[in-house]
Amino acid sequence: MKLNWGMIGGGEGSQIGPAHRLGALADGNFSLVAGALDADAKKGRAYAQRLGVAPDRAYGDWREMLAAERDREDRLDLVTVATPNSTHFEITKAFLEAGFHVLCEKPMTMTVEEGEEIVRVSRASNRICAVNYCYSAYPMVREMRHMVATGQVGKVRLVVTNFSHGHHGNAEDADNPRVRWRYDPAMAGVSGQFADCGIHALHMASFVVGDQVDRVSADFASTIPSRMLEDDAMVNFRMTGGTVGRLWTSSVAIGRQHGFDIQIFGETGGMRWASEQPNQVFYTPVGERTQIMEKGESGLSDEAARLSRVAIAHPEGFPLAVANIYVDLAAAIRGELRDGLPLAEDGLRSMAAVHAAVASAKADGAWVDARPPMFR
Amino acid sequence: MKLNWGMIGGGEGSQIGPAHRLGALADGNFSLVAGALDADAKKGRAYAQRLGVAPDRAYGDWREMLAAERDREDRLDLVTVATPNSTHFEITKAFLEAGFHVLCEKPMTMTVEEGEEIVRVSRASNRICAVNYCYSAYPMVREMRHMVATGQVGKVRLVVTNFSHGHHGNAEDADNPRVRWRYDPAMAGVSGQFADCGIHALHMASFVVGDQVDRVSADFASTIPSRMLEDDAMVNFRMTGGTVGRLWTSSVAIGRQHGFDIQIFGETGGMRWASEQPNQVFYTPVGERTQIMEKGESGLSDEAARLSRVAIAHPEGFPLAVANIYVDLAAAIRGELRDGLPLAEDGLRSMAAVHAAVASAKADGAWVDARPPMFR
Amino acid sequence: MKLNWGMIGGGEGSQIGPAHRLGALADGNFSLVAGALDADAKKGRAYAQRLGVAPDRAYGDWREMLAAERDREDRLDLVTVATPNSTHFEITKAFLEAGFHVLCEKPMTMTVEEGEEIVRVSRASNRICAVNYCYSAYPMVREMRHMVATGQVGKVRLVVTNFSHGHHGNAEDADNPRVRWRYDPAMAGVSGQFADCGIHALHMASFVVGDQVDRVSADFASTIPSRMLEDDAMVNFRMTGGTVGRLWTSSVAIGRQHGFDIQIFGETGGMRWASEQPNQVFYTPVGERTQIMEKGESGLSDEAARLSRVAIAHPEGFPLAVANIYVDLAAAIRGELRDGLPLAEDGLRSMAAVHAAVASAKADGAWVDARPPMFR
Amino acid sequence: MKLNWGMIGGGEGSQIGPAHRLGALADGNFSLVAGALDADAKKGRAYAQRLGVAPDRAYGDWREMLAAERDREDRLDLVTVATPNSTHFEITKAFLEAGFHVLCEKPMTMTVEEGEEIVRVSRASNRICAVNYCYSAYPMVREMRHMVATGQVGKVRLVVTNFSHGHHGNAEDADNPRVRWRYDPAMAGVSGQFADCGIHALHMASFVVGDQVDRVSADFASTIPSRMLEDDAMVNFRMTGGTVGRLWTSSVAIGRQHGFDIQIFGETGGMRWASEQPNQVFYTPVGERTQIMEKGESGLSDEAARLSRVAIAHPEGFPLAVANIYVDLAAAIRGELRDGLPLAEDGLRSMAAVHAAVASAKADGAWVDARPPMFR
Ligand SMILES: NC(=O)c1ccc[n+]([C@@H]2O[C@H](COP(=O)([O-])OP(=O)(O)OC[C@H]3O[C@@H](n4cnc5c(N)ncnc54)[C@H](O)[C@@H]3O)[C@@H](O)[C@H]2O)c1
Ligand SMILES: NC(=O)c1ccc[n+]([C@@H]2O[C@H](COP(=O)([O-])OP(=O)(O)OC[C@H]3O[C@@H](n4cnc5c(N)ncnc54)[C@H](O)[C@@H]3O)[C@@H](O)[C@H]2O)c1
Ligand SMILES: NC(=O)c1ccc[n+]([C@@H]2O[C@H](COP(=O)([O-])OP(=O)(O)OC[C@H]3O[C@@H](n4cnc5c(N)ncnc54)[C@H](O)[C@@H]3O)[C@@H](O)[C@H]2O)c1
Ligand SMILES: NC(=O)c1ccc[n+]([C@@H]2O[C@H](COP(=O)([O-])OP(=O)(O)OC[C@H]3O[C@@H](n4cnc5c(N)ncnc54)[C@H](O)[C@@H]3O)[C@@H](O)[C@H]2O)c1
Repeated sequence: MKLNWGMIGGGEGSQIGPAHRLGALADGNFSLVAGALDADAKKGRAYAQRLGVAPDRAYGDWREMLAAERDREDRLDLVTVATPNSTHFEITKAFLEAGFHVLCEKPMTMTVEEGEEIVRVSRASNRICAVNYCYSAYPMVREMRHMVATGQVGKVRLVVTNFSHGHHGNAEDADNPRVRWRYDPAMAGVSGQFADCGIHALHMASFVVGDQVDRVSADFASTIPSRMLEDDAMVNFRMTGGTVGRLWTSSVAIGRQHGFDIQIFGETGGMRWASEQPNQVFYTPVGERTQIMEKGESGLSDEAARLSRVAIAHPEGFPLAVANIYVDLAAAIRGELRDGLPLAEDGLRSMAAVHAAVASAKADGAWVDARPPMFR
Repeated sequence: MKLNWGMIGGGEGSQIGPAHRLGALADGNFSLVAGALDADAKKGRAYAQRLGVAPDRAYGDWREMLAAERDREDRLDLVTVATPNSTHFEITKAFLEAGFHVLCEKPMTMTVEEGEEIVRVSRASNRICAVNYCYSAYPMVREMRHMVATGQVGKVRLVVTNFSHGHHGNAEDADNPRVRWRYDPAMAGVSGQFADCGIHALHMASFVVGDQVDRVSADFASTIPSRMLEDDAMVNFRMTGGTVGRLWTSSVAIGRQHGFDIQIFGETGGMRWASEQPNQVFYTPVGERTQIMEKGESGLSDEAARLSRVAIAHPEGFPLAVANIYVDLAAAIRGELRDGLPLAEDGLRSMAAVHAAVASAKADGAWVDARPPMFR
Repeated sequence: MKLNWGMIGGGEGSQIGPAHRLGALADGNFSLVAGALDADAKKGRAYAQRLGVAPDRAYGDWREMLAAERDREDRLDLVTVATPNSTHFEITKAFLEAGFHVLCEKPMTMTVEEGEEIVRVSRASNRICAVNYCYSAYPMVREMRHMVATGQVGKVRLVVTNFSHGHHGNAEDADNPRVRWRYDPAMAGVSGQFADCGIHALHMASFVVGDQVDRVSADFASTIPSRMLEDDAMVNFRMTGGTVGRLWTSSVAIGRQHGFDIQIFGETGGMRWASEQPNQVFYTPVGERTQIMEKGESGLSDEAARLSRVAIAHPEGFPLAVANIYVDLAAAIRGELRDGLPLAEDGLRSMAAVHAAVASAKADGAWVDARPPMFR
Repeated sequence: MKLNWGMIGGGEGSQIGPAHRLGALADGNFSLVAGALDADAKKGRAYAQRLGVAPDRAYGDWREMLAAERDREDRLDLVTVATPNSTHFEITKAFLEAGFHVLCEKPMTMTVEEGEEIVRVSRASNRICAVNYCYSAYPMVREMRHMVATGQVGKVRLVVTNFSHGHHGNAEDADNPRVRWRYDPAMAGVSGQFADCGIHALHMASFVVGDQVDRVSADFASTIPSRMLEDDAMVNFRMTGGTVGRLWTSSVAIGRQHGFDIQIFGETGGMRWASEQPNQVFYTPVGERTQIMEKGESGLSDEAARLSRVAIAHPEGFPLAVANIYVDLAAAIRGELRDGLPLAEDGLRSMAAVHAAVASAKADGAWVDARPPMFR
């Protein structure tokens, strides 16, 4: 039986909505049966119906949806929250408390306190609160995690990761509302580019290394003067096990499209992965030649094999990484919580790191504890 | 309302089955409601049910499926044929004649005569017979076609395309039945590698250039001596408008994974696309620098925009190219037949080219008419 | 003591002249002491002097140079012939007969008969006649030859090589005299692009595989109609040991800059090298991952190590490949003839292959013997 | 007339010696007439003679060379200092004071005070003291500098540069004396990897942007515990004109070979260059597609054209970048000092930045003034 799925946000023309729908539907695990898809109630209702949602479950608003769905027999198995950042906390918390499993977009919350609250609520309600760090669900990212875990690069000395694009590099476009809010503290919170893209990189560093970020030292810049929040940031960090981290994120790196990559350097080998060519890993055992690993090649880990859908060198892209999150969510909902699914704890850690980086940047690069208080 | 979809072949563990299911489901246009998925009736029935097909529509055999489905009220809107090549003709013909729309895997038939028959049946029955030349549905391939059609490279002088991999390069593996049949005329017909992979490249040449192959001169080789059919082929061709074509296909090119690419050289520009990085086109206007075009960039054609699902530089891969075929099939079934959907006529042309290339190779490279008799 | 070096052609503004001077001087083996550098006697004399040649050895003409140099005490140890193709035979023959060692640019001659004559004269005079197939002197090309010779890819089944650029793709430029002569039989002989670039690729196939081309089947095209000779050619070939060959060469491939590459596919592995990134080889042992080999890495053959000049990953380029030819020429002149230096026999084989390909193209792709009569 | 050239250090088997010899000889400007090539006097004398130096100018020691050369009629026009770092100051100073032009390897000195002293001596003696920041002499690096200077990317907001390799990543090799000294303050001074490689990147940032580094904030790590100096460093910086800089340098980045690259992001465009493919620049005007620029293409600046030696897409490598330094040195010695030649002032600025970065790293990333006192 298909699981019942509902969606909040991700309306027509939204950026991430299509990836969620492709992701949830692709493997036949979920049916879209309810939604409050748009800030504009009318548009949201109409669009939901065009997507096949029954009129009575095509809502104008998430509160309406919550009220109507909480007591249905055929209640939702999963709610995806793909609205703007500032609404994530409230919506996610409300649905968790009402007993729904939730997949929340990143960043999960705006503050550390909210993050801790979501962790608590999720634990108390015994509901899954996943966070859409979808890059971690690429088969070859799972493979890297497996390689670190099984010692194929030795103890990790260094992780270097970038998430830099140039899509906000045009000053003439800076006052365009679709861009502007991202650098306005009133709407975006304490951080611009780091909270938007940097946290994907930070999560991936932890995910692949299998360790947590302890402290950070940051240098933020607003290269377009009208911006109050940073559009470029360098964050150095240290992990619990001693790994040195370097993370550069930018939105003014004109010419870079989706410049998210990660390099892992351990005692006995190095690896490199880039999101624009996600089906390969370049792996170099120390003293040997670099090898090109391919998604779908024989001999990969069970995780990588399980999450790969077509034959070697048939590229699989971003929507299928999102689909892999839904695959693992379906399993989790059915009772099998697999290693690797990003959860509220991960969302919380990101928030703590964002706030620590902001504090460090303000303190001229001083090292700041990046752990959430509840995990210290 | 979702369209009713049935599948023949593509059973558990099959190579292409998952791509069809992802492709058909991803956009919510189709529901998988019937299937005869496996050569082994029992396995096929069980697997269909695990995929959510109702027991009474989980068939052991395509004839059983045809008999049961032809008179249902909630009859199938589309049947996909993803069985081994030699069965395509019989199954496709039977379903078309029974009034079903069909998506047939390539090669559509084994002989030119069968190909002409399918074209006739499809026309007579007024049913869509599409052929899964799925690479043509990548957004950036559509963009190239559009660029040629709108004169952005001028008259095309030359098209150079390769589809060469190394997955059958291991002689020790040559007697493995999963590999062996491909080079055995009893099972594979008149051609091995050219009929298997080369025809994708040939179709793409026609698709992008917007012209047909008139004649061919071929050099075939069986580099592993036990093979009766070619595992490497070079096919030179000429198109109706005079374009010169060069097509190399190999299955013993060890180190190449999915080496399918195409280069178009016209009077005022050149282009290059490769299937392992399908979201870019390298475009060089004559006398200018090479430009990197990206799927999702602003200013692309409506076709490319329509078939792209996530933001620029978020890679989209093979399963979504297949999904694009299903998008256009859904539209066609609903009455809007769009330019670009590969049809029985394309499947027939491929067969004619395969037989012409075989004849040419046997005649030491003599030039042979590659047009199906019915189109001369 | 430095060797005395003289140069014919390669005047100011010539394309290949600078590479010869860099090549000859770089390692301190040669001094430029004489030259007839230009078709224009006055310009040639002046330029030679600006390059440090003494006035009495700055000649206006190669005949003058031959007459003056043949009886000097401090006679030339080596004469480089870098004039247009049609003059190579006459000049090279005259200098060999006068007892000079010669490095002749490619193509060595215009006809097979002339080629055989040069071989005979070189043998009779016991002088070295080298031909500037300079790409064969890249360290990583030597490494590939070594790998084939030592069985690291097994028996070579297939060699695929391209030398295709787009620099003559602009029809408006086709009547520019600097381009035009190349496609005019009166000046260029029987072949255009194949004789100009294709023979580098053909030589490299033989060089790396360690075998000779036996027969060819060619398809030539003049994609710019005013051209009498081909600007695009596909040449299939077979080597003595059975290796299948495929060679594409074009000058209208707009967007390709210096598209010279080679792929070798053997029973137990494959390799790929490209002239635009000459310091790497991609090597795939059958059933294993592709490895990136780097010039300068430890463990390479003596040949590759000897011809590499700076540390790993410090790129070395085209002029140093030419310099490597001069390194081996210096050694040969001093008495040590090393394996790998391209000689008159290689120049002759190229000419025979050119004429065979032309004959095949005229005969619609018929297979033609490509061996020089004297080697049959 | 050729210029007389002498060399100190760069003995047989040294890393950088061959590049200097190729560089100085390639264009015929210099003759190697004197040398003290080796720490071992006997080996140095013998090797110099094998390189064609007359016995009486093949010295065992630089002091001996200085004493003998200072009063010769045919005195040296240029002395290259390619010895280990700690000797640069003393040798360079002595030769400048004796009236010789000097090309000193980087780092020019060990301390800021020494750096200022060299600047003073060079000015007082009116002798050229160049520093071998040879990457700045690649044609395409000059082109980038020209593009910035002529406003083709607008005001530069951000420069991101890395010089990271993995050649010291093997802990088992860390006690090998050839590696060890680099991380030992007694021999290497205050900094390991940053002073060795990082300063190339820092110089290039200044060179391309056309501005100076004002202050730095650094994070150093010794990822191999036995090391006293850093093997990995992140240095954030600000330039006088406000440009934000980010520089990562590492010697434990296993799998990176010669990972030196630079990205420039301005108000109206971005650029990227990498030392392993030095003949291309990727250039993106804001809002447009990325363009691939090629060394040797038409329309480049005079500087890029002048320093390129062979036709477009014929790669030129590291030794020819060094040769370009010698080309400009020959011109400077002959009276024409061209823009772009790296001089003592550049060497001094590097030293000041190294010491500032060390101080910052010790002060937990505090921002430190990076300007030499004499330039404040
Ligand atoms: N995981 C990823 O890789 C990734 C990528 C892009 C965006 N995101 C995240 O997804 C979220 C949405 O981003 P986007 O780029 O799609 O934004 P968007 O502005 O393109 O779309 C937001 C959608 O939410 C709707 N919406 C707004 N307020 C709503 C409300 N109160 N109730 C219901 N619907 C509402 C809007 O109408 C719109 O359809 C953000 O949190 C963003 O950070 C994640
Ligand atoms: N368009 C493409 O890019 C592409 C890629 C791969 C394969 N293909 C084509 O798809 C077809 C299938 O190839 P594959 O690689 O998936 O083969 P496969 O051998 O991996 O799978 C074939 C499937 O068909 C089933 N089957 C066989 N005979 C059947 C029958 N009579 N009735 C029902 N099911 C039957 C098998 O049990 C199996 O599940 C071939 O025609 C092939 O050329 C196309
Ligand atoms: N090995 C390679 O990779 C390579 C590359 C380019 C050219 N080439 C070959 O080098 C040769 C020269 O080509 P190019 O591109 O440098 O040509 P070019 O036209 O650029 O230069 C030819 C030079 O020869 C001079 N010259 C002409 N006739 C002369 C004569 N009778 N005596 C003395 N000098 C004379 C000209 O004045 C000019 O300086 C050709 O044979 C060409 O095939 C080889
Ligand atoms: N510009 C660049 O890209 C680059 C690249 C590599 C090295 N370098 C610099 O070049 C210098 C040399 O480095 P290397 O890697 O070639 O070192 P190396 O150890 O390989 O060689 C040093 C050479 O100097 C000789 N030598 C040592 N002390 C001497 C003395 N007192 N008198 C004469 N000769 C002496 C040694 O015998 C040896 O031949 C260093 O300063 C290094 O930083 C620069």
